[in-house]
Amino acid sequence: MSRRVLITGATGEIGLLLAERLRDDYELVQHGRTPRTQEQEEQLQEADLEDYEQVRALMDGVDTVLHLAGSASPDSAWEDVLGANIIGLRNVLEAAREHGVRRVVFASSNHAMGMYDRHEQWPVYPHHLPRGDSLYGVSKAFGEILGRYYHDQHGLDFIALRIGWMSGDPTLVDEDVLRAMWLSQDDTEQVFRRAIEAEVTFGLYYAISDNPNRRWDLTNTMLDLGYRPRDSWTEFEPEDIVEGGAAVRDNWPEDS
Amino acid sequence: MSRRVLITGATGEIGLLLAERLRDDYELVQHGRTPRTQEQEEQLQEADLEDYEQVRALMDGVDTVLHLAGSASPDSAWEDVLGANIIGLRNVLEAAREHGVRRVVFASSNHAMGMYDRHEQWPVYPHHLPRGDSLYGVSKAFGEILGRYYHDQHGLDFIALRIGWMSGDPTLVDEDVLRAMWLSQDDTEQVFRRAIEAEVTFGLYYAISDNPNRRWDLTNTMLDLGYRPRDSWTEFEPEDIVEGGAAVRDNWPEDS
Repeated sequence: MSRRVLITGATGEIGLLLAERLRDDYELVQHGRTPRTQEQEEQLQEADLEDYEQVRALMDGVDTVLHLAGSASPDSAWEDVLGANIIGLRNVLEAAREHGVRRVVFASSNHAMGMYDRHEQWPVYPHHLPRGDSLYGVSKAFGEILGRYYHDQHGLDFIALRIGWMSGDPTLVDEDVLRAMWLSQDDTEQVFRRAIEAEVTFGLYYAISDNPNRRWDLTNTMLDLGYRPRDSWTEFEPEDIVEGGAAVRDNWPEDS
Repeated sequence: MSRRVLITGATGEIGLLLAERLRDDYELVQHGRTPRTQEQEEQLQEADLEDYEQVRALMDGVDTVLHLAGSASPDSAWEDVLGANIIGLRNVLEAAREHGVRRVVFASSNHAMGMYDRHEQWPVYPHHLPRGDSLYGVSKAFGEILGRYYHDQHGLDFIALRIGWMSGDPTLVDEDVLRAMWLSQDDTEQVFRRAIEAEVTFGLYYAISDNPNRRWDLTNTMLDLGYRPRDSWTEFEPEDIVEGGAAVRDNWPEDS
């Protein structure tokens, strides 16, 4: 019998991708607010993640939660981060514990460690102290710590993926540090598949493609999860690259 | 002119001690709910730290905040931790930033790292990843991370003291790990004085006495803050030690 997998935030960019690509191998439950596909028109589970009872209602029979929902912008105000990311994440973990869910895979972010990037203090390793570059980044670090507690205290599997920058085309920017954190759609699918199935029960993992100029360690992602990134932004021809890195810096890409 | 120092939670155990011992050297503003001294009957500033406007009203002219207020028990429920520790701490940092406060000294806790202790994974160093042993401990780790963000982003000085177990008499327990985290009243005073005055502008520091069986690193507390612990639980005569460690384990001491 295939695992029942709840995707929170299945209407976001990564959620949509995973809903499409995992549907043949898992029994999916898609959560979100605004349907983006015909399937979601019919099946999308609405739930306010700030309301614990509504979160509980999503968990019936669930084996694995892919928790993607939440405020996804480094520009988010405190009130948004508090509700969607801090209270919402806690509700997901608590409801998962209560329902005996096996594993929560948490969409963390490079922004949980982004202040190292801002100061160009590289490489960044998973054992480095959290250092958010925004209230959003701090909320992702909080999620990692609360998840570790639920793992240590309650035996819930918890895998945090610090997602870089998912995009179909890395040449949309010409800034080295952004391209270095590119995560292709295929590698996104792979790293989430590995996070669902890997035997490891806890860990903090960078999730980016095999970009040779990367600043973030992939060693434990490869060793613990068996992740084998197949793409790199360097596979794109240089002439494809669009100018305008400075302008893009003001619109630092969100990671979901 | 002496610094104006706001003590939040001045009615707690550590708050009362500091209010008494720092009064001659600083212009104190004492915040709390229930007055515990004659002076507090007259001067105590009441403020709900979950209400941002009330927190702002405490900050006028303040140079340093000693942030001791909050839920102080490892047994605290999520709702208490969320309100008093997460929202309250954020409000203190944001109001401090808005008012140009120089420094916030944050009463963190050994419980922010307590899962290492539970698993006897010693020694614990300040560069180890946060690993709370309770929702309370997780909230203290969150405070450290949010404080680091306010330091990095806004230039606010932020000193986190991971307080061990403050007590007048360490022989109240016979459990080795508890006595190892003992912090005498004199050393409490000293480490807070150093945290107010030290030239360092950010750091995470263990605050315990000079207990030879300690599991937690004091190197950076001594080097960065100039802390020189003068006491040790071993100075107490063995015959003073009360039996009953097992019973005490069920009542793991709170740190404020």
